[in-house]
Amino acid sequence: MSDDPLAARVRRTLRDVPDFPKPGIVFKDITPVLADATFFADVIAAMATWYRGSGVTHVAGVESRGFILAAPIACEMGAGFLPIRKPGKLPSQTIAREYALEYGSDRLEIHADACVAGSRVLLVDDVLATGGTAAAAASLIEAIGSKLIGCAFLLAIDSLHGADRLEGRSVRVLLHV
Amino acid sequence: MSDDPLAARVRRTLRDVPDFPKPGIVFKDITPVLADATFFADVIAAMATWYRGSGVTHVAGVESRGFILAAPIACEMGAGFLPIRKPGKLPSQTIAREYALEYGSDRLEIHADACVAGSRVLLVDDVLATGGTAAAAASLIEAIGSKLIGCAFLLAIDSLHGADRLEGRSVRVLLHV
Repeated sequence: MSDDPLAARVRRTLRDVPDFPKPGIVFKDITPVLADATFFADVIAAMATWYRGSGVTHVAGVESRGFILAAPIACEMGAGFLPIRKPGKLPSQTIAREYALEYGSDRLEIHADACVAGSRVLLVDDVLATGGTAAAAASLIEAIGSKLIGCAFLLAIDSLHGADRLEGRSVRVLLHV
Repeated sequence: MSDDPLAARVRRTLRDVPDFPKPGIVFKDITPVLADATFFADVIAAMATWYRGSGVTHVAGVESRGFILAAPIACEMGAGFLPIRKPGKLPSQTIAREYALEYGSDRLEIHADACVAGSRVLLVDDVLATGGTAAAAASLIEAIGSKLIGCAFLLAIDSLHGADRLEGRSVRVLLHV
């Protein structure tokens, strides 16, 4: 499948950083996409169209880079914003999910009262990699009584098969790498 | 000085969380403001007006909560987005600033090539407290050859006198607490 014009532009603009965060990994740096005013706006506008008309009431972003896309998508869609954060960052009562990393595990939290029951939530993050983070975030959204409408990513690293961890959920991706 | 109507609404909506992140501190939780779709949009629209007409080319946000305001303000202003991050998070060549905390110190980084020289940057964060973070972020923006147009905060905790650390810079605050 060839890229659409916006995806092709993201592919050209991403910066490959070798050996980050550790040797052998080629990191896909999205900061050149964010720094370009009209390009950033085009990406936000495009991602905001995917679930328009689905009655989305809130957009959830995963700390930290997910916030950079999720917050403007929330504004663009006329939705509220829900932060899903690293442990110990949210001040009120939280629900948590552990998820496995290559070595060890990590944990995400959401405020237990983050939105009213019956809210319709879109999950947004920058990169879908192994899907561990996304699956934990999706589970948290459902744990607070919300309906998960879909999962939207700027990039998916297809060789890591993250979408398998989101089976049964609606997943949209701007660029497959 | 009494609050304007939007500031008054922020004051009513903030949640005070006692003893977070440590005993004796009353944390101002902004998540109820973010979760309310029209209110969140109103806050972003209001903050985006402050430096409209000042030729802002980029909006810089400080990790993590600053991203939630800075990214939609960038979109609303038609500007690019620049992340200022915790150590080791930005993949390419960075410039860093240390700043003092109550106990010890912390460090922020910006990509050395984050924007072209002569860019005009607005700094956005959620809370102006002691001003250490903001002063470090302002210094980083200038260190990459950009002009710092102003510093915009949702809240300022006036008893901590953070604005003193930004003397000579333009500072705007939605709500003083």
